[in-house]
Amino acid sequence: MKKWVYMFSEGDATQRNLLGGKGANLAEMTKIGLPVPQGFTVSTEACNEYLKNSKLTDEMVDQIKEHLTKLQTIAEKKFGDEKDPLLVSVRSGARISMPGMMDTILNLGLNDQTVLGLAANTGNDRFAYDSYRRFIQMFGDVVQEINSQKFEAVLDEIKSRNNYKYDTELTTQDLKEVVKRYKDIILSETGNPFPQQPAEQLFMSVEAVFRSWDNPRAIVYRDLNDIPQDIGTAVNVQCMVFGNMGDDSGTGVAFTRDPATGEKDLFGEFLVNAQGEDVVAGIRTPQPIAQLKDIMPKVYDQFAKTAELLEQHYHDMQDMEFTIEKGKLFMLQTRNGKRTAAAAVRCAVEMVEEGLINKETAVTRVEPQTLDQLLHPTFNEESLKAATPITSGLPASPGAATGRVYFTADAAKNASENGEDVILVRQETSPEDIEGMYASKGIMTARGGMTSHAAVVARGMGTCCVAGCDEIKVEETSRIFHINGQTIKEGDYISLDGSTGNVYLGSIKTQSPELSGNFATLMKWADEFRTMDVRTNADTPRDAAKAVEFGAEGIGLCRTEHMFFDEDRIPSVRRMILSKTVEQREKYLAELLPMQKSDFIGIYKAMKELPVTVRLLDPPLHEFLPTDEEDILALAKDMNMSIEEMKADIDNLEEFNPMLGHRGCRLDVTYPEIGVMQTRAIMEAAIEVSEKYDYHIVPEIMIPLVGMVGEIEYVAGIVHNTAEKVKEEKHSNIEYKIGTMIEIPRATVVADQIAKTAEFFSFGTNDLTQMTFGFSRDDASKFIPTYKDKNILPGDPFASIDQEGVGQLVKNGVKLGRQTRPDMKCGVCGEHGGDPKSVKFFNSVGLSYVSCSPFRVPIARLAAAQAAIEQK
Amino acid sequence: MKKWVYMFSEGDATQRNLLGGKGANLAEMTKIGLPVPQGFTVSTEACNEYLKNSKLTDEMVDQIKEHLTKLQTIAEKKFGDEKDPLLVSVRSGARISMPGMMDTILNLGLNDQTVLGLAANTGNDRFAYDSYRRFIQMFGDVVQEINSQKFEAVLDEIKSRNNYKYDTELTTQDLKEVVKRYKDIILSETGNPFPQQPAEQLFMSVEAVFRSWDNPRAIVYRDLNDIPQDIGTAVNVQCMVFGNMGDDSGTGVAFTRDPATGEKDLFGEFLVNAQGEDVVAGIRTPQPIAQLKDIMPKVYDQFAKTAELLEQHYHDMQDMEFTIEKGKLFMLQTRNGKRTAAAAVRCAVEMVEEGLINKETAVTRVEPQTLDQLLHPTFNEESLKAATPITSGLPASPGAATGRVYFTADAAKNASENGEDVILVRQETSPEDIEGMYASKGIMTARGGMTSHAAVVARGMGTCCVAGCDEIKVEETSRIFHINGQTIKEGDYISLDGSTGNVYLGSIKTQSPELSGNFATLMKWADEFRTMDVRTNADTPRDAAKAVEFGAEGIGLCRTEHMFFDEDRIPSVRRMILSKTVEQREKYLAELLPMQKSDFIGIYKAMKELPVTVRLLDPPLHEFLPTDEEDILALAKDMNMSIEEMKADIDNLEEFNPMLGHRGCRLDVTYPEIGVMQTRAIMEAAIEVSEKYDYHIVPEIMIPLVGMVGEIEYVAGIVHNTAEKVKEEKHSNIEYKIGTMIEIPRATVVADQIAKTAEFFSFGTNDLTQMTFGFSRDDASKFIPTYKDKNILPGDPFASIDQEGVGQLVKNGVKLGRQTRPDMKCGVCGEHGGDPKSVKFFNSVGLSYVSCSPFRVPIARLAAAQAAIEQK
Repeated sequence: MKKWVYMFSEGDATQRNLLGGKGANLAEMTKIGLPVPQGFTVSTEACNEYLKNSKLTDEMVDQIKEHLTKLQTIAEKKFGDEKDPLLVSVRSGARISMPGMMDTILNLGLNDQTVLGLAANTGNDRFAYDSYRRFIQMFGDVVQEINSQKFEAVLDEIKSRNNYKYDTELTTQDLKEVVKRYKDIILSETGNPFPQQPAEQLFMSVEAVFRSWDNPRAIVYRDLNDIPQDIGTAVNVQCMVFGNMGDDSGTGVAFTRDPATGEKDLFGEFLVNAQGEDVVAGIRTPQPIAQLKDIMPKVYDQFAKTAELLEQHYHDMQDMEFTIEKGKLFMLQTRNGKRTAAAAVRCAVEMVEEGLINKETAVTRVEPQTLDQLLHPTFNEESLKAATPITSGLPASPGAATGRVYFTADAAKNASENGEDVILVRQETSPEDIEGMYASKGIMTARGGMTSHAAVVARGMGTCCVAGCDEIKVEETSRIFHINGQTIKEGDYISLDGSTGNVYLGSIKTQSPELSGNFATLMKWADEFRTMDVRTNADTPRDAAKAVEFGAEGIGLCRTEHMFFDEDRIPSVRRMILSKTVEQREKYLAELLPMQKSDFIGIYKAMKELPVTVRLLDPPLHEFLPTDEEDILALAKDMNMSIEEMKADIDNLEEFNPMLGHRGCRLDVTYPEIGVMQTRAIMEAAIEVSEKYDYHIVPEIMIPLVGMVGEIEYVAGIVHNTAEKVKEEKHSNIEYKIGTMIEIPRATVVADQIAKTAEFFSFGTNDLTQMTFGFSRDDASKFIPTYKDKNILPGDPFASIDQEGVGQLVKNGVKLGRQTRPDMKCGVCGEHGGDPKSVKFFNSVGLSYVSCSPFRVPIARLAAAQAAIEQK
Repeated sequence: MKKWVYMFSEGDATQRNLLGGKGANLAEMTKIGLPVPQGFTVSTEACNEYLKNSKLTDEMVDQIKEHLTKLQTIAEKKFGDEKDPLLVSVRSGARISMPGMMDTILNLGLNDQTVLGLAANTGNDRFAYDSYRRFIQMFGDVVQEINSQKFEAVLDEIKSRNNYKYDTELTTQDLKEVVKRYKDIILSETGNPFPQQPAEQLFMSVEAVFRSWDNPRAIVYRDLNDIPQDIGTAVNVQCMVFGNMGDDSGTGVAFTRDPATGEKDLFGEFLVNAQGEDVVAGIRTPQPIAQLKDIMPKVYDQFAKTAELLEQHYHDMQDMEFTIEKGKLFMLQTRNGKRTAAAAVRCAVEMVEEGLINKETAVTRVEPQTLDQLLHPTFNEESLKAATPITSGLPASPGAATGRVYFTADAAKNASENGEDVILVRQETSPEDIEGMYASKGIMTARGGMTSHAAVVARGMGTCCVAGCDEIKVEETSRIFHINGQTIKEGDYISLDGSTGNVYLGSIKTQSPELSGNFATLMKWADEFRTMDVRTNADTPRDAAKAVEFGAEGIGLCRTEHMFFDEDRIPSVRRMILSKTVEQREKYLAELLPMQKSDFIGIYKAMKELPVTVRLLDPPLHEFLPTDEEDILALAKDMNMSIEEMKADIDNLEEFNPMLGHRGCRLDVTYPEIGVMQTRAIMEAAIEVSEKYDYHIVPEIMIPLVGMVGEIEYVAGIVHNTAEKVKEEKHSNIEYKIGTMIEIPRATVVADQIAKTAEFFSFGTNDLTQMTFGFSRDDASKFIPTYKDKNILPGDPFASIDQEGVGQLVKNGVKLGRQTRPDMKCGVCGEHGGDPKSVKFFNSVGLSYVSCSPFRVPIARLAAAQAAIEQK
């Protein structure tokens, strides 16, 4: 005979799968001798069996009855006893807590007779009838699926008839009427009277819990969260205790440490003479837990010891619920407490210091994603309380910022140079705005999503950004924006919270992040476990330095084109692009050479001996060309061309699908002189810095967008020849490496051949995702929302790598590449490099490093450590 | 000891790899007793060994000497004999003939002494010195790599000094001077005198042949043609025979059958008293081979019997070279003869009838690609001779056409309706030109490549097309085009040859293709061997009927969007696209429903019970919208919108990368009502036709551009629900199938999951190629020419499938799909379906069918048969 039902005293915390989370913890607390109202758990296996048969089997019914008998013996009370009835709660409890599931039924066991016993026994008629009406209401709602509005309507009617404001004003007489009318509702809705037999009430409730496992909301939730559909829920049946039996009773919740700061001290609140629902109702203000010490010193003492015991027992901060019934403490629940990032870091580090956990455990205790909260300025809490948001947008890049509004990149730059704190407000940003974005404390856009230009660039810079504030109307020419009838003009102060998306009028005090202390300790430990390197994507010495501060071990992606947009350079870039002959192009490239070289000198100096991967020019050339009439005219004059000719040349460079156009290594194949100039700039810079500072520098030159073996062979040839020439000229014997980005689906298929030439791979998962899915980020916004609504695309494949599609191509690319070159360094650059879930995947396929924007470096370090620990 | 050298009498035709093609055939002819000037072959293995060591090994030298001795015995002549010297030719001969290789040295063995012997022996001083100077010239050129211009200059100088026009006018005295001056050149160029020892001449020549294997042109050729670099060439050393020893001598070439028509009759020509070179020089006109019968009846008889014997022996039509020396016939070469497509078909069929070969061999004897020549009209040869091309472009779609020039689709259509033959001339074509293209006999464009709109559509229609005639200047508004100073105006006659790209002024007679007779017989045999089905891509009943005529076994791709461009429909299509509500869109879809349905009725009628796969709407919607002001205004009026609003809506539908945008199944996800209308049209049409004609029709509905499992599930749901609804309304129990196009790289990775819903796969290798390579066809033209120049992209991946990249994804998709659904029908649609090389690849990965444009159906049938035979 299979065992379907377990007394709390029969289980323990390891039986989560069988007893559910709640049941296992109640059993564990029982086991270690804590005062838990006793009860039993009907197992998750029973749930699955029930769902198969659509009814409880005879065996289950027998076992529930048998365990009920045991419970009656322990509790020294009986179901249906007219003097001192046994009352129980029925709660669901799956392995993982889940919305959409039936939750709780209290006071089960009450009926027209036992309510009288309860009243007599407690000497409190009102309490007894209130308990009864609550039970009927919960039972009707969750077991019999009667619309709860019907019950509320009765309460409202009686309250309004009597001019009551709160439920607490209802008299015993009122509550008797409520009970009567509730029973009428049940009769008319179900055709049957409210069941008076406690055993019948119990079986109906157990079945209702089981049935709720299969309700549509729960199924969708499990689908979305990758929770198996067949693990089932358990049901916990537990003796009721009452915190509302007088001034020697009460109820409360508490944490073993402060969930906001992590400080080791009991943190929580309680209410005297109250039940849990009363806390929720919010009529009375609970007292801080410390005050319990004065009111009930013995109970407080017992609770404090219990809390300490539980933390020691679970090796983690606990979130506990308790009830005091007539001076006696009962523990109703304990679980690992949720906490802020700051608290998580402090708890983890201090628990190691206390000897409660080891470093490995500490490293797994912090969600990498949450570190973001710690790396950016935040609003001062007091100042924030005084502020009300005027609108909100997408929380596109975290942090808090206050400053004066400016509407153009130039204005932002000028104001910043004058020492002002600037918030750049734009319809949407474009590459031309880069300098203004750099100069700003925060960026707000009216259009664009989480992957818009503003969002991506701001995250890269670590600048706070609220994107897609679609309620605001920006008038750039008038230098104002409107929001709900208000007009904000240039120079006005606003404040942005990039972590919530809120926008405030006026200035709010901010405070800087704290990166030393516990944070530094935890990151140091993470690095001890991590096997994958973490590099950064950085195009400027400033970003590079920031990233090193955050622990980056090199640059995985330095995009040379970002340097091309600089005001001083763009004219030469444009002339170079529009050149008609190789000679002409070489002339303008020669103008660019010293500038590119100085960029690399800055970066090499910032990175010292850390590796730096520089990617050759990548974007389609059209991106660099002017779009407005005035600029075109100026350029035409400058190049001695008619404006018509200039326009025709610009048009000619336009592409149907620029993403699939003339870019990446294709530029170097058609214009080898570009690759020559860039290689020369990289090599000369590396040689100069290495000689001046005596650094050992090994430049890594990365050829983008390779899909064919011939491409890498040809472009690597250009790079190689140029590099050797520079070495000869400079009498240098510097080493260098030539590698490629794997970002074209075909490259993952022929990676073994590409690896014959490429000395390293860097997976460009942004473009690889676009091409593997066959949609461009720029255009996908037209249909992606619908895809999300219809649950066709569960997550955003640009935020977290699509493991079953794109991820398989990455895996294959690594495998093939290492077939040819077993020690091949394989990394990833692009936003996935800073996403913890993706980082774990990359660890599992054996990547050597991930590279991400500076502000995501700590996240990647922690995620990589957790991945290494998990996969040990 | 390894054998490096083989007498002709030691080998046979099977030893191609060892002896090269020429050597093996000479050995074979020797073996079957034909009169072959004897000699020996230095093997390909010797070549490889030579290239490894950069010299002939002692063993090789010894063996060459030893075989030379044997040859002297057989020939009864000696090297260097001053009376009757042995003279030989030295020729290269690899397994496959190859340009760039050293070819031939004649008369080796001549020197200052033996030339006298030759003169005395033949009684012809002039002949002897002419032979000597030719030998020195060839030796200097190919062995010593002296610029042949230097030799030519000497000849030219003497000729001009004497006012000679032809070499033949040179006297013995002149030739003696030539010989002297040639030897001076060699001395001054090499620092050594011309080698007088025949053995030295021979070894130097053998080494030169071996070295030429590694010359750059040969290496590149092998790379481009997938010929291994390590197979090496053999060297054939053969006794000279002379056809220029008087009127009882001669030389000629002949085929056993007419290489143009395939008629079984000796076909060829000969010259009396001449050497092969004289035929090439073209000074005397050769006589038809039949005339040899009158001049040398015995020799002719012997030759005719030999020819017959060779054909019987090789079981194929032979291309032979022969020389008659003093009445004695010598066979110098035999090989399988090249032939036209028509000849190939006739030979193959007649040889089966003659019992020479079996059907299987016959099917492999015709290059599938060449069938194209047989399916289209051609110019009457006589008429063509009188015409001179005025320009030429790309041979974009084969066939010949004559007609009057029109410059717009409308004008073309009107003229055609008036019974005129029309040539449509445009700058480039667009989807709006479809009707005009349909109405035309031929299409010429000034811009666009082999994969431009005009080219693709014309090939699909089987209409002759010359694309990218970049010399012409089209002025559509003035209805003229210019070419090299000439002006051609509307209504003028021109003629196009789509097989050569030539364009002629005036009309040229055309003749229709002949599809019955031998052609039909061969295709019937092909079908007996073929295991893959061949379907067609057809969007109209006309195309469908044409394809069935060509043997199509169904429609693999019916593109519903082509129907949307029709003049009657485009207004409703546009209104539908610009609808603001579902109701509005449904209203316009309802207008389209009867039209779409009538299309499908036409197609089902044409195809009877053959399967028809209909693809749901695929292109981005912006493609359907008007571009010129007038049309936009009309549409705005029609839809009661301001022109600004209309323009804004049109702009809003524009995409950055339309190829990766809102198209394919993404349209049905966002606008399910489109899928509903199309499914209804397909189902209602199928039910109507099947009931009216009592056909068993199983509609196949294909969902395009699926990359995610959720997409196919969602859209298949729409199709399924609609289809079931229609069945219910029509009281029909018709079956239907729902499948998908696999054309997104990701789909090939998750094909196992997609196959849970999709009942068939059709690989859309056009889009799959674009996305796997990461370039769009429209934009790639900017860099592809450079890629070809630099040998980075060996072939056009849109013409023949990229087997190692895209092909691997197809293979994986098939494998995964059949893991889920073992009997899954997997096909391919798109241009690769009609490319023989691709067809063979598809056969090897187990596809069930290929689908191609109607005019490629016979090609695909034959290619599929050959693939099946090869892979047996």
